[in-house]
Amino acid sequence: MAQYNKLTADVVEKLKAIAPNRVFVGEDINEDYIHDEMPIYGKFSPEAVVEAVSTEEIAEVMKVCNENLIPVIPRGAGTGLAGGAVAIEGGVILCTTRMNKIISYDMENLSVTVQPGVLLQNLADDAASKGLLYPPDPGEKFATLGGNVSTNAGGMRAVKYGCTRDYVRAMTVVLPTGEIVNFGSNVKKTSTGYSLLNLMIGSEGTLGIITELTLKLVPAPKEVISLIVPFEDLNACIGAVPKVLLSGLNPQALEFMEKDIVRMSENYLDKKEVFPRVIDGVEAGAYLLISFDGDSMDELEEISEKASEILFEEGAIDILVADTPELKKNAWAARGSFLEAIQADTTELDECDVVVPISNIASYLEYVNSLQDKYGVRIRSFGHAGDGNLHIYVCRDELGQEEWEEKCKAAMDDMYAEADRIGGLVSGEHGIGHAKQEYLEKCVGPVEIEIMKNIKKVFDPNLILNPGKVCYKL
Amino acid sequence: MAQYNKLTADVVEKLKAIAPNRVFVGEDINEDYIHDEMPIYGKFSPEAVVEAVSTEEIAEVMKVCNENLIPVIPRGAGTGLAGGAVAIEGGVILCTTRMNKIISYDMENLSVTVQPGVLLQNLADDAASKGLLYPPDPGEKFATLGGNVSTNAGGMRAVKYGCTRDYVRAMTVVLPTGEIVNFGSNVKKTSTGYSLLNLMIGSEGTLGIITELTLKLVPAPKEVISLIVPFEDLNACIGAVPKVLLSGLNPQALEFMEKDIVRMSENYLDKKEVFPRVIDGVEAGAYLLISFDGDSMDELEEISEKASEILFEEGAIDILVADTPELKKNAWAARGSFLEAIQADTTELDECDVVVPISNIASYLEYVNSLQDKYGVRIRSFGHAGDGNLHIYVCRDELGQEEWEEKCKAAMDDMYAEADRIGGLVSGEHGIGHAKQEYLEKCVGPVEIEIMKNIKKVFDPNLILNPGKVCYKL
Repeated sequence: MAQYNKLTADVVEKLKAIAPNRVFVGEDINEDYIHDEMPIYGKFSPEAVVEAVSTEEIAEVMKVCNENLIPVIPRGAGTGLAGGAVAIEGGVILCTTRMNKIISYDMENLSVTVQPGVLLQNLADDAASKGLLYPPDPGEKFATLGGNVSTNAGGMRAVKYGCTRDYVRAMTVVLPTGEIVNFGSNVKKTSTGYSLLNLMIGSEGTLGIITELTLKLVPAPKEVISLIVPFEDLNACIGAVPKVLLSGLNPQALEFMEKDIVRMSENYLDKKEVFPRVIDGVEAGAYLLISFDGDSMDELEEISEKASEILFEEGAIDILVADTPELKKNAWAARGSFLEAIQADTTELDECDVVVPISNIASYLEYVNSLQDKYGVRIRSFGHAGDGNLHIYVCRDELGQEEWEEKCKAAMDDMYAEADRIGGLVSGEHGIGHAKQEYLEKCVGPVEIEIMKNIKKVFDPNLILNPGKVCYKL
Repeated sequence: MAQYNKLTADVVEKLKAIAPNRVFVGEDINEDYIHDEMPIYGKFSPEAVVEAVSTEEIAEVMKVCNENLIPVIPRGAGTGLAGGAVAIEGGVILCTTRMNKIISYDMENLSVTVQPGVLLQNLADDAASKGLLYPPDPGEKFATLGGNVSTNAGGMRAVKYGCTRDYVRAMTVVLPTGEIVNFGSNVKKTSTGYSLLNLMIGSEGTLGIITELTLKLVPAPKEVISLIVPFEDLNACIGAVPKVLLSGLNPQALEFMEKDIVRMSENYLDKKEVFPRVIDGVEAGAYLLISFDGDSMDELEEISEKASEILFEEGAIDILVADTPELKKNAWAARGSFLEAIQADTTELDECDVVVPISNIASYLEYVNSLQDKYGVRIRSFGHAGDGNLHIYVCRDELGQEEWEEKCKAAMDDMYAEADRIGGLVSGEHGIGHAKQEYLEKCVGPVEIEIMKNIKKVFDPNLILNPGKVCYKL
């Protein structure tokens, strides 16, 4: 295993010479840097934080730390949910949030070049003002694009537009040795050697530090329409999904939600008018929230008619067309606040972010729900019906520490084992960090883990970059 | 550098025990196995050919060859254009064309599982009969899907649907050590450790042998329409492309062709009615061939009207709508036979398959054409205007061997250097093989090549699999 040194006054001086006034140590370190957005995975104090402003600066910091065997943890906005950007071995957090410039658009090649610290929301807004869409749309809009690329972030629109991976054309990377390289190019296809670009995407800051990105954009669709579709129960709700996907109507987003979580979110937001509860005497047990985009309302109305036909055939008990900005906003606001609503409703929670074949969503959730009785814990879930990525939360409620840890671990073990059994994978979009390493190992097996570890060593012989994450356990 | 052993009678016996009646040596080796479809890159005799029928068999062959330090060259239909599937170090060609079963469709997850030796055309036809489309559409329809994945094959529809990479969900792989692994899963998104799946795609059989593939399908669009659009010259023709792409009309295919190559192809096919030569006294110097797909002819007529408006504004001198099957077939048959037409028109040729930012296509081609005078060679080109992938051919015509080699090399050196200068990459879709290694090195530089070599060693410590290809030169 790797041996690391503690940060010395001498090294701190070197870092300060590289990044004047942007090196923080001791009490000057902002408390936010010691955790991400899943506090259950622990708090870890870095020895220093460097708020970098350029590729060259990051290369210099990396060289000094590599020579002195000091861990470096790249970090964006710290919105991760798997403990990927925390200093579990101490060392230097290298924060990229000051590198927040949208450098340039290329309207002929439909691309944008950005620094890694640009926030998703800022790029989305800016691109929209130019008639363009940056399709990846994770729930967390204040993540950095560097972070999004590092976890191959997915989001609501993945069903139509794919994930972050599909929008990365090129990147500048500082390697753990301090060398600066460029992977990919602003071209639309390539077969030019091993795709190091794709290897970097989703590697959670363990292979190199992304310091610039060239991202693909698409012309923005002019109109979007959403359908709110209640079903009697989850089985009917999920059962309708393959039919919608096979129809060729090409929904932009396709989310499912059980009534409990909808009610929780309505209470949290204090908005109770969006999702109908009882229709002609039948109580809604689950909902689909579907969006379609297109170039005219005529086109969308036609699509929405065809979709309604299919959905009614599949057992929908009603269909509400959210065609006003207000109704659309409220429906998606409810969806957007599920995690916060669950958090507000319990004392502590742990999360599972598996992805399963969409044909198995319903039976998998039935299994997950059965664990509530098995372990006497409350479990809530929602997810992307269009792509099989589920977000499942085990709630602590009033459990004592020991009992909570035991029950939560047992439920998680079961959930990951079952996902594995039905062809699912550990993480759909949040990544492995240090929190999901055990499940990654079980899921991919020893041969694949060994390949990953050896690839890590190719990039990072001293195991200096983001130690103890993804494939390398401490 | 690696040391290999010659195949002994003892090892041949072991192979015959693994694959009875499907091991060929000496004069029993079919002549086709000594080259791919670019004879200029040389002929190389393997010491044996094994026509495998299962994953397990391939694993056994691989183990025996790895233990005995005998090179193994995975090969599909041998339609490559970069010398990727030839035995430059001797050894065993492991042919997968007998593994040609379409194993099963999964209509809920919209995917198909196939053996690697299934031909692209066979999957395309079979999927179509089920109302589904496998979007990747390289010109060569008789390549195997294993080969397509190994080069991340692109094709005509890449502009709308992306490349082969975007359609691979999972694969079974035999590693050079003989271990069998599964990369990916039948899910629509993942952030589960390093993407070994994406590393395999485009690795040209140097990291492992693909023995099964799960591929994504999409609902087949019901209608397709093509436009034949003559322009006065290439600059105007290429200049119109970004406008079409920015329009949001989302063409399925967008090809450019200069008049010389169109005439060549018309002569080759003996069909002279498709591409108009003179319109209202103006001679056409170049053409766009554009396709749109959709669910009804009404929709497509609307799209084609909007496209026509843009194209006329950009200087199109006419627009022919190919809306009959006959006309569509003839237009695309002309496009599909460009390579054969060029081959038929000269004695020998060499190919360059660069991809450049689409904004640079016109100026790059102007540069390429200027090399005809500089070196006194004839150069012909065509390509994917929608994605910047160009196919450029230097023709030998009547040049003597030495002069031909010298001039061709000089022209190629210039072309790759210029592509590199403007942000292009060595190969858009044909790969590196052993023929383009020098240009790969120049394009990506020493640090990246070293990373690729070290990744190769992670998978293949004895450098036994497809030696001397992609990053490892002999």
